[in-house]
Amino acid sequence: MAETAIRFGILGCAQVSCKLSKAITQAPNATLHAISSRSIDKANKFAADNGLSPFVKIYGSYEAVLDDTDVDAVYIPLPTTLHLKWAVMAAEKRKHVLLEKPVALNVSDLDRIVEACEANGVQFMDGTMWMHHPRMPKMKQLLSDTHRFGQLKSIHSCITYNAGPDFMNNSIKVKPDLDALGALGDIGWYCIRAILWAVDYELPKKVVALHGTVCNEAGVILSCGSSLHWEDGKVATFYCSFLTYITFDIKALGTKGSLSLNDFVQPFLENYGTFSEASELDYMKIEPGKWAPTPNEHVVSNEFPQEVLMVKEFADLVEKVKGKLGLKPEKAWPILSRKTQLVLDAVKESIERGYEPVEIVP
Amino acid sequence: MAETAIRFGILGCAQVSCKLSKAITQAPNATLHAISSRSIDKANKFAADNGLSPFVKIYGSYEAVLDDTDVDAVYIPLPTTLHLKWAVMAAEKRKHVLLEKPVALNVSDLDRIVEACEANGVQFMDGTMWMHHPRMPKMKQLLSDTHRFGQLKSIHSCITYNAGPDFMNNSIKVKPDLDALGALGDIGWYCIRAILWAVDYELPKKVVALHGTVCNEAGVILSCGSSLHWEDGKVATFYCSFLTYITFDIKALGTKGSLSLNDFVQPFLENYGTFSEASELDYMKIEPGKWAPTPNEHVVSNEFPQEVLMVKEFADLVEKVKGKLGLKPEKAWPILSRKTQLVLDAVKESIERGYEPVEIVP
Repeated sequence: MAETAIRFGILGCAQVSCKLSKAITQAPNATLHAISSRSIDKANKFAADNGLSPFVKIYGSYEAVLDDTDVDAVYIPLPTTLHLKWAVMAAEKRKHVLLEKPVALNVSDLDRIVEACEANGVQFMDGTMWMHHPRMPKMKQLLSDTHRFGQLKSIHSCITYNAGPDFMNNSIKVKPDLDALGALGDIGWYCIRAILWAVDYELPKKVVALHGTVCNEAGVILSCGSSLHWEDGKVATFYCSFLTYITFDIKALGTKGSLSLNDFVQPFLENYGTFSEASELDYMKIEPGKWAPTPNEHVVSNEFPQEVLMVKEFADLVEKVKGKLGLKPEKAWPILSRKTQLVLDAVKESIERGYEPVEIVP
Repeated sequence: MAETAIRFGILGCAQVSCKLSKAITQAPNATLHAISSRSIDKANKFAADNGLSPFVKIYGSYEAVLDDTDVDAVYIPLPTTLHLKWAVMAAEKRKHVLLEKPVALNVSDLDRIVEACEANGVQFMDGTMWMHHPRMPKMKQLLSDTHRFGQLKSIHSCITYNAGPDFMNNSIKVKPDLDALGALGDIGWYCIRAILWAVDYELPKKVVALHGTVCNEAGVILSCGSSLHWEDGKVATFYCSFLTYITFDIKALGTKGSLSLNDFVQPFLENYGTFSEASELDYMKIEPGKWAPTPNEHVVSNEFPQEVLMVKEFADLVEKVKGKLGLKPEKAWPILSRKTQLVLDAVKESIERGYEPVEIVP
């Protein structure tokens, strides 16, 4: 472990905390300092189940983590409804904030969180893990290659999983008082972020939700979709659902080429990420009996799983603020979160307004 | 060649006629008897370019083919605007009709064509070639497997190609007086047919076109899309475009499994068709470090290319009507064409009505 390892605390023992506690332990510049739950029993059980080091502090309240002066940064995987309270409080206690997605119930809540982080000079980043996989810059390189890919015209994303009856009855992700955004917040967030990533984070001019949103009895979204439209004619579509077999698809179409992957939220393999690419330039290679070349498969190896790379990147930024460099927090990350949330809010508004188009106001 | 080989005439020397003249020659129960063009020079050139047998009659008018009493059936690849006139006339001359898609400018034109076929006891089929690939029944078997696939919830299709400047200036497919339906007719047809195929041809209750249709100066659609919605909550989306790199994608999502292919209009290989399938039943196979099993690849070999299989199927039906069996024409095929056209008309209406939902009235 580096001498300057950033010391993390985790607020809450959600399922995703298992993954993140491992990731924090694995990241070369981070260390897990404390975990917490509202119940000390639950926190103790989490520590035992996940084989945490005996040096990790175990707290029976979130406040205790925030009051621990040895904690540099917190990872907050709490239900979305609680983000505003705890992320703001964390910032006020001068803890850097790694906040699980969806970051907030709406953009005005997010603005308050980001303002609190800025006012207290702490780094903010959302927990979109796949953003940190090294295949992302490789794919971006392809999308930017006008010779091979041409001009980006459309993006299509589909993220689903069949959550099953236990989830439907008990998961916080379908409870209106906890994660009111349902599937739109949980996986629609990924679709929107991936689409924005593909267009270099240029906000669409408008969104129009797909008719036929499915909600549970409490009104929480179980499946929905939307199209996004840009001034220059680019278009994107997405569909997300808790009701079908697992799918993590994204496809980007350019005038001269296409890019696709079917495992973009979580690569099929831990140490390699692949993507598939096709270009009209390869038409020269067509063999007799073929109408088109089969797409090229690219393989990108990763030293660490993407969640570890996320922790590493975040800890690097924290170190720059906290350490000798004394830099200001990197503003790019909260800006990406805000753009994602803005689009998400607009999709929700379109659904609420009977699928009317909703203009995006930056 | 079988003694009972069905003798085909072709109306028009369009590019697709090259493929079909070969397919008719290759099909074991069909023979190419005559080709035609409005210009005898063009017809002669077509015969020479395609190495047609000297026994093939070459006519300088479409009427001449219809007046040739040796012709049993005609393949009509003329511009859509001309379908009504020539398909009706062919039927009246007792020729069986294999009609290129889109079959008509609208469903009322199609009804007149189908009525003429019924009144004259001739078989009707549209030229949707991929319907005849043997992987289609294999995929249908999977979609119907409630144990492996569960219940179908959504279908997503994307068919595009970058037609290029010469096409944009000169192709009949973007001329309002010839193929007024543009990309919606040319490739949107395939998306709609594939979606209907997946749902066992149950018509959706409504369609809602995707905002942002792109048209050329003459108002012909170059790119568009739509969603389709069923009473039971099933949803489908499609996107078609002449403006991006070639894509032939379809994905069907069930509660327990998924099915996808990326070459469904024209398989990558001539003698094999593949498709990709995943099911939650395979979760038992997950290796450490994987979040999900990679999808299963299925390979289905085909004795003939799909266009030959289409001709063979059509000729078989014609033989049943014309030969000793003396059966009535098979009504299933015109019904599929009509359902496809009904949905296509509704998408066009939704576009024209500013992307309002349009109910489908069977």
